[in-house]
Amino acid sequence: MKIAITGIGHTKFGVLPQTLDELIKQASLDAIENSHINLNEIDAVYIGNYSSQFAMQGHIAAIVSEQLGLTTEITRVESACASGSLAVKQGILALLSGRYKNILVIGVEKMTNVTIDTATKILSTAASNEEMQHGFTFPSLFALIANAYFDKYQANETHLAKVAVKNHDNALLNPLAHFQKQITVEDVLNSRVIASPLKLLDCSPISDGAAAVILTSEDAIDHSTQKPVYILGMGHVVGPISLFNRSDLCSIPSVVSAAKKAYEMAGITPKDISFAELHDCFTIAELIEMEDLGFCNKGQAKKLIDNDETKRNGKIPINLSGGLKAKGHPVGATGVAQIVEVVKQLRGEAGDRQINKAKYGLTCNLGGVGASALVTILSN
Amino acid sequence: MKIAITGIGHTKFGVLPQTLDELIKQASLDAIENSHINLNEIDAVYIGNYSSQFAMQGHIAAIVSEQLGLTTEITRVESACASGSLAVKQGILALLSGRYKNILVIGVEKMTNVTIDTATKILSTAASNEEMQHGFTFPSLFALIANAYFDKYQANETHLAKVAVKNHDNALLNPLAHFQKQITVEDVLNSRVIASPLKLLDCSPISDGAAAVILTSEDAIDHSTQKPVYILGMGHVVGPISLFNRSDLCSIPSVVSAAKKAYEMAGITPKDISFAELHDCFTIAELIEMEDLGFCNKGQAKKLIDNDETKRNGKIPINLSGGLKAKGHPVGATGVAQIVEVVKQLRGEAGDRQINKAKYGLTCNLGGVGASALVTILSN
Repeated sequence: MKIAITGIGHTKFGVLPQTLDELIKQASLDAIENSHINLNEIDAVYIGNYSSQFAMQGHIAAIVSEQLGLTTEITRVESACASGSLAVKQGILALLSGRYKNILVIGVEKMTNVTIDTATKILSTAASNEEMQHGFTFPSLFALIANAYFDKYQANETHLAKVAVKNHDNALLNPLAHFQKQITVEDVLNSRVIASPLKLLDCSPISDGAAAVILTSEDAIDHSTQKPVYILGMGHVVGPISLFNRSDLCSIPSVVSAAKKAYEMAGITPKDISFAELHDCFTIAELIEMEDLGFCNKGQAKKLIDNDETKRNGKIPINLSGGLKAKGHPVGATGVAQIVEVVKQLRGEAGDRQINKAKYGLTCNLGGVGASALVTILSN
Repeated sequence: MKIAITGIGHTKFGVLPQTLDELIKQASLDAIENSHINLNEIDAVYIGNYSSQFAMQGHIAAIVSEQLGLTTEITRVESACASGSLAVKQGILALLSGRYKNILVIGVEKMTNVTIDTATKILSTAASNEEMQHGFTFPSLFALIANAYFDKYQANETHLAKVAVKNHDNALLNPLAHFQKQITVEDVLNSRVIASPLKLLDCSPISDGAAAVILTSEDAIDHSTQKPVYILGMGHVVGPISLFNRSDLCSIPSVVSAAKKAYEMAGITPKDISFAELHDCFTIAELIEMEDLGFCNKGQAKKLIDNDETKRNGKIPINLSGGLKAKGHPVGATGVAQIVEVVKQLRGEAGDRQINKAKYGLTCNLGGVGASALVTILSN
């Protein structure tokens, strides 16, 4: 059975006045309207949300019910920053059971009503407690990875900075992005050090936002009103939470495995991918994922970057939305938002940032330091 | 396709020395051993866990991977105190997709390493933020329900006390229960008032614990080594989080709907049920669920109680395990633990608390004040 996305919704990302409840409602209603279905045609809902600690609200399945006026099967899933894609995956599995026709999938996080220190603490619960107790934070874990990568592959801070610059450039064309601010390589290199070699402008921000999609089983698609984008392949892999026993810090094993599954399911290879939304929580992650996804050999991401091949007009545009870096990273929303961007590009609805010849789009969504990974491949 | 439970695991419930990680590992390995399968035969894992705030650990899918040495598709789900059953449901849906053979389902909560005040605050995030801001707590929400029920159906505190006494009596025969302590109706009535009419001994305790099951698709069952117990029906319904617009406080609409679905799927009626594990987070909940599940008409639960029909030798034994009240209530574990008890009874492995003629067992697991409900029917 083929599964399609027939509706999309996406709030503005940023420091927003809306509450968690309002964000859920807005993205959901937008997706429902975009799909041209009625509320009562939704058979089940999956919602990805990372932590009840940001808005002090657990049990958000029941918030969804209250906000939408919908009493049905509603399920929250969580796998750190991969919660959004995981919600999409569970929606797909539910449709494959043959018991549903339309499923609403929501990703949401309301992060900015706590202090930055509290947010850092909440985010750190996505990593190994033991490693955190030894003084690590997420930036320092990714800094460790960046230093190992620099050493092994002779990359440097300028390569990372170019990723940030590109993603900010893309976000200039995305009205929903957290940042609409052009930056230069010098801006990145001169920004405050967070965990060397990562600087402030290598890090994604703390954002509020929600995104939603309607998943529809093939036999329920109304081709007269809907523009289906099909999910061709998806891989989901969860490995150990700790970084200490990862044999090579320059690769994320869960991404490699999840990508393999996704490509096999889709029946395509990395060179078929037209564009991708990657999980650039820190700039170094974008380089490593490019390689682990097979867009180039290990250690060669810097060449693609130096040759502008990942820019909007390059061979393999990456993070046309602005990525986590510039579009923003409301963690539970991110995976769904990545898929929304791919759908927009494949439908030809990406406005000023629309690329030509968008045939196969890929998303890569990480949880933690990559213990969780979901890779999704979509096409018309 | 029929889905069976082929393995069960259950730690002691109570104030335990084990960490969250250790509880996950113990219940999982016990279920795997009980199912006579190898670790590498597990195709996916679902884990029900309510809050990252108790143990300050989110992303527990990656904890499962690390503890079991298993890199695969691992998903955490949450719907307040119904998280455990919800994990079982997602495991069933995954099997129905036809893509897996064996799925490990875990429920876990490590609650006792925070203070009682902190625990109360964490639990309150499962209810409406708005209602909580007006001064409600979970005991007071259920107290409101109890008073409405007393008024409408002329029940009284003694009926509630008899539920607590019965469940403590049952727990005396369950070595894994949090409490092994006989109590009397007078003990309950004389215990400290928590939220009138509910007293301390009307309330389930704060517990640590984990439970696990192996779900197996029919074609993968090895009848030479496994004793399958089949899931005949399951209903999952989520309604609005707030209590204020529930038209009748004496009924839980999500339970009524979920039960209807479960009975229809199983092709049986309430009178076919041999015994049940209900969600007695507070004693009043057991009475209301008895009625909403169709074991008697509305307002008649007190008669079944007065006639000892819900005791071990009665017509419809309820909470043979001791229930949440006496077995304990590590919230994410509860739904899985209810199903483990039903499997034990149906297999004839319930030891001193084994009943005769156990044909159809039912579990009812609530989230919040009943916004989430899952009803499951099992048989050999």
